[in-house]
Amino acid sequence: MPQLQRLTRLRQPWALQAASAALQLQQLNNLESISHVGTGAERSLATKATAASSSRSESWSVPASILAAGAALLGSALLVPGQASAKKELAILPGSKPSPAAAPAKTAGAAAATEPAAAKGQAKDEKGRPIYTREDVAKHKTPKDRVWVTYKEGVYDITDFIEMHPGGASKIMLAAGGSVEPFWGLYQQHKKAEVFAILEPYRIGTLEGGAAAAAAASASLKDPYAGDPARHPVLIPRTQKPFNGETPGSLLAAAAVTPTDVFFVRNHLPVPAVDTQAYRLQVAGEGARALELSLADLQSRFRKHHVTATIQCSGNRRNEMSAVKPVKGLEWDQGAIGTAVWGGVRLRDVLKAAGLSEDDPAVAHIHFEGLDTDPATGDVYGASIPLARALSPEADVLLAYEMNGAPLSADHGAPLRVVVPGVTGARSVKWLGRIVASPSESASHWQRRDYKAFCPSVDWDTVDWDSAPALQEPPVTSAICEPAPGTVLSAADGEVTLRGYAWSGGGRGIVRVDVSADGGRTWAAARLLPPPPGAPAHGAYTGAWAWTLWEATLPLPAAAGSSPGPDSASSSVTLVVKAVDSSYNNQPDSVAGIWNLRGVVNNAWHRVTLPLEP
Amino acid sequence: MPQLQRLTRLRQPWALQAASAALQLQQLNNLESISHVGTGAERSLATKATAASSSRSESWSVPASILAAGAALLGSALLVPGQASAKKELAILPGSKPSPAAAPAKTAGAAAATEPAAAKGQAKDEKGRPIYTREDVAKHKTPKDRVWVTYKEGVYDITDFIEMHPGGASKIMLAAGGSVEPFWGLYQQHKKAEVFAILEPYRIGTLEGGAAAAAAASASLKDPYAGDPARHPVLIPRTQKPFNGETPGSLLAAAAVTPTDVFFVRNHLPVPAVDTQAYRLQVAGEGARALELSLADLQSRFRKHHVTATIQCSGNRRNEMSAVKPVKGLEWDQGAIGTAVWGGVRLRDVLKAAGLSEDDPAVAHIHFEGLDTDPATGDVYGASIPLARALSPEADVLLAYEMNGAPLSADHGAPLRVVVPGVTGARSVKWLGRIVASPSESASHWQRRDYKAFCPSVDWDTVDWDSAPALQEPPVTSAICEPAPGTVLSAADGEVTLRGYAWSGGGRGIVRVDVSADGGRTWAAARLLPPPPGAPAHGAYTGAWAWTLWEATLPLPAAAGSSPGPDSASSSVTLVVKAVDSSYNNQPDSVAGIWNLRGVVNNAWHRVTLPLEP
Repeated sequence: MPQLQRLTRLRQPWALQAASAALQLQQLNNLESISHVGTGAERSLATKATAASSSRSESWSVPASILAAGAALLGSALLVPGQASAKKELAILPGSKPSPAAAPAKTAGAAAATEPAAAKGQAKDEKGRPIYTREDVAKHKTPKDRVWVTYKEGVYDITDFIEMHPGGASKIMLAAGGSVEPFWGLYQQHKKAEVFAILEPYRIGTLEGGAAAAAAASASLKDPYAGDPARHPVLIPRTQKPFNGETPGSLLAAAAVTPTDVFFVRNHLPVPAVDTQAYRLQVAGEGARALELSLADLQSRFRKHHVTATIQCSGNRRNEMSAVKPVKGLEWDQGAIGTAVWGGVRLRDVLKAAGLSEDDPAVAHIHFEGLDTDPATGDVYGASIPLARALSPEADVLLAYEMNGAPLSADHGAPLRVVVPGVTGARSVKWLGRIVASPSESASHWQRRDYKAFCPSVDWDTVDWDSAPALQEPPVTSAICEPAPGTVLSAADGEVTLRGYAWSGGGRGIVRVDVSADGGRTWAAARLLPPPPGAPAHGAYTGAWAWTLWEATLPLPAAAGSSPGPDSASSSVTLVVKAVDSSYNNQPDSVAGIWNLRGVVNNAWHRVTLPLEP
Repeated sequence: MPQLQRLTRLRQPWALQAASAALQLQQLNNLESISHVGTGAERSLATKATAASSSRSESWSVPASILAAGAALLGSALLVPGQASAKKELAILPGSKPSPAAAPAKTAGAAAATEPAAAKGQAKDEKGRPIYTREDVAKHKTPKDRVWVTYKEGVYDITDFIEMHPGGASKIMLAAGGSVEPFWGLYQQHKKAEVFAILEPYRIGTLEGGAAAAAAASASLKDPYAGDPARHPVLIPRTQKPFNGETPGSLLAAAAVTPTDVFFVRNHLPVPAVDTQAYRLQVAGEGARALELSLADLQSRFRKHHVTATIQCSGNRRNEMSAVKPVKGLEWDQGAIGTAVWGGVRLRDVLKAAGLSEDDPAVAHIHFEGLDTDPATGDVYGASIPLARALSPEADVLLAYEMNGAPLSADHGAPLRVVVPGVTGARSVKWLGRIVASPSESASHWQRRDYKAFCPSVDWDTVDWDSAPALQEPPVTSAICEPAPGTVLSAADGEVTLRGYAWSGGGRGIVRVDVSADGGRTWAAARLLPPPPGAPAHGAYTGAWAWTLWEATLPLPAAAGSSPGPDSASSSVTLVVKAVDSSYNNQPDSVAGIWNLRGVVNNAWHRVTLPLEP
């Protein structure tokens, strides 16, 4: 029962203390979130786990049968897209748009012309459409034979749609002659009414056995996410397959080091099952002696280092961008960030062991390939960083096998992951399989066609991915974690206490955090809390890889009294935070000016508007 | 006639071509500026020089007598403070405020009690005040004897004011027993009616000979700025003594490399006269072998390097901050920035020659001491940078003896200056005299009590200078250089072309420049012009020391037509620019949120509002 083992790790008192401190309100939020997206079995998992945690028990008791049921669930109707995959597809044909209104007539005509069986008194469904067997469908795999697919009990001739597929012809052809459902399960952006509306006009018939047979066939498909670990129920899920879940704000603000079990999870693909004993890290590429290193090799041949570093998803706080104008991506609030003490060996030391040098003119980038694999294409997750960073002793890039003093967990990249301090999370590749030295950047979709920002006027029809560099160091950001959204402030209290985090890329320390209780008209400097263990003093120019937690108590407008301003009479208060890093970079005031189609690097002032009662 | 030689350097065609391109409008602006602040002799200098330049002559003819007269002028009434010195004084007693209303009664009484001569039928002036000789005044240099000073023909007993002096007791005591005028000439914030109003109540008598004798005495005082070089009249002066002048926007946008003669000048103190033959650079401090290097030593013993780097004053665009709320500092528009090709030796190489190492635990900072000296205190200009930057081969810190292919000019630090690429101008110490390795930052006022930014709520009474780190790498910024302020746009043209610069600290390249012709509601990406020679491609993660020039043509609101927005009907257009660096740092939307008492690092969106005619 590996899932059970994961959960019982919560017995560690340090994890539980931090987790329980501010859990109660968030548990309710979280429970609601899970209930909205999950199935019945998932809900009962969440309920039981949460109940155990909120009673502050030091051990959990979740029936293994429930865990197994939860893990084995197939995609429920409301699951949202595997984001990165969605982008990959769209990027292939950025200018094309499916035209459901125009296409069907042509298609229907073509289908009628090439399918004489339909006219030969074949069995018909209740609407008079021909009934086909799976074998019939399987004969139609090429444009020459026409391309058929099934979805539930429907049979579709999509030959004329192939070139219009937003994800590219090659992707949709993977389903030729069979069901699209396994693919829609992977690229879950398909699970929308609009997508079905595009498909439906191409329908040419019905599958033998109808809806019941289709459901049985679907259930027999292997779920590539069946091996995913169980997750702490306090994580607020943004998607289930792949799993992406964020940490509630109050838990972020509760401790400078985020407990592993509540650390946000950002997966692009199914969690791979890696046998630690059999595991070998491959090192290859230009100018490198090929190496194959077991975990024991890494631990015995190289010096162990610890780095306290914050990791943040590029899309953290994306929901504020969506509020301005829809963007594509996980609807993260401010919880796709966390700080851990990572233990492992320096990437630099391993690269040096492979003979790589700063002066090698043939090498400019170091690629990381994950062991997590796209079940449809076989592609692995990948990213790269510039060689200078990889080899710099100051950059502290780690091949980590420990997180917060324990071996890496399955969700965080066991047995080995990259941690690139001060760089956006997408480069800290989990389940690291291979390191490749190269003259050019990783060709991975996630390096070249994602995790970049553009002018607010650029949309999916006009984006030129090559015109912007891959996001490496993110800009300075900050967020209010407490009071939580929905908190009702009382003017009678006279004041409000804010808590949150601030962080910047590139090791630039936080110099100052400014807070406001009047929407940003007036500001006060927050108190910066002590840095986490191993982190330099506040405001360091370099090496500040970890966030700065802060707190501030501000007078509430009505209590401030003397000269009643616009807020004094209002029934709500807008709390704002903005931070300054050691390059004196400030955050932009508003989201609109930095809006970008992928909704990344949102670092506008963070605002929380709360009702104010007398 | 070194001044004449400086001016004739303008014969270099490359300098003149760039300078003349957009000179005519700016010359008018500039001439007005000089006329406002200068005396008659200065005005005639400016007029002649400008006239010669605007006729696009390739050689200048300015009578040496006029140059000498201009250079030797004493402070005229409207000259404004030597900024850094002003701050230094204020910082000593930030909480103290002179109280002219309360002090005089006490002082007058004390003066009467201790000066029996005044009662002994001594000569009186026309208002019945005692007349004193300079010798009388000179006897009063200590609180015990009472402290007297003179200002013009007035004699003042300032004993009771000494402790209230905003610049500190030690500074005002430098004038004890003599005239305050030489000091007011240095710390020109005194030259205001308010300051005279503070002094006047302390008056106890009149100087023998009255106003005429005082004027003659004043004229005989040496002007520490008499040795300053002549400047190109196109520079827009912000102060004359010390000289601070900025480059007109149209000249900034005209060339990726700014011609030396129109490169902005930021002096804190008089320009020192350095004999290049006798010059020796001193290297000293912790862990360093003491070195003494002539310019020839530097040129022969070390490899020559070239770096194309932008230098920007920390206070560039300060005038926008003043518009929100007054700040202390030079009222720079967007022209306190420029880019040059610097030639010299690497600081790293010199430090290595002195035996310094990255691993020396006793050294953390490298200090630079200028040869420019405060005439009143003997203090030299100073600053420091962290050792890691000083020794980094990637940081490209230069000891430069060339600027744009010629030996450094007097205003730009001849014979040797520091150029710290990607770092605020204040650390690129000119007229470099001494390099000192140290465990701590430079104790210089300009390192510790200036060039830092604070929360908008912090004022001169509450500032804690130690709470913020010294500004090193500045944040991403940009500015519209064309159209120039005051340009009238014509809706009939249908469009407007914008030109300007964008730059970020730390070698972070410019990824993108967004421009707007509707005040920031909608944006378009500007075209980035080719990088200057020696600079990396746009968007580089590191080593992008030079700015990026850009241009964009936008439809004018009335011409854009289709859906009339708020601007379509208006008679003005607000052009806006904002840039993004390779850490995806954006500029803040507005100045108010980043306002700080010293008015530094203003990198808000740059806005230019212009009238729109049909």
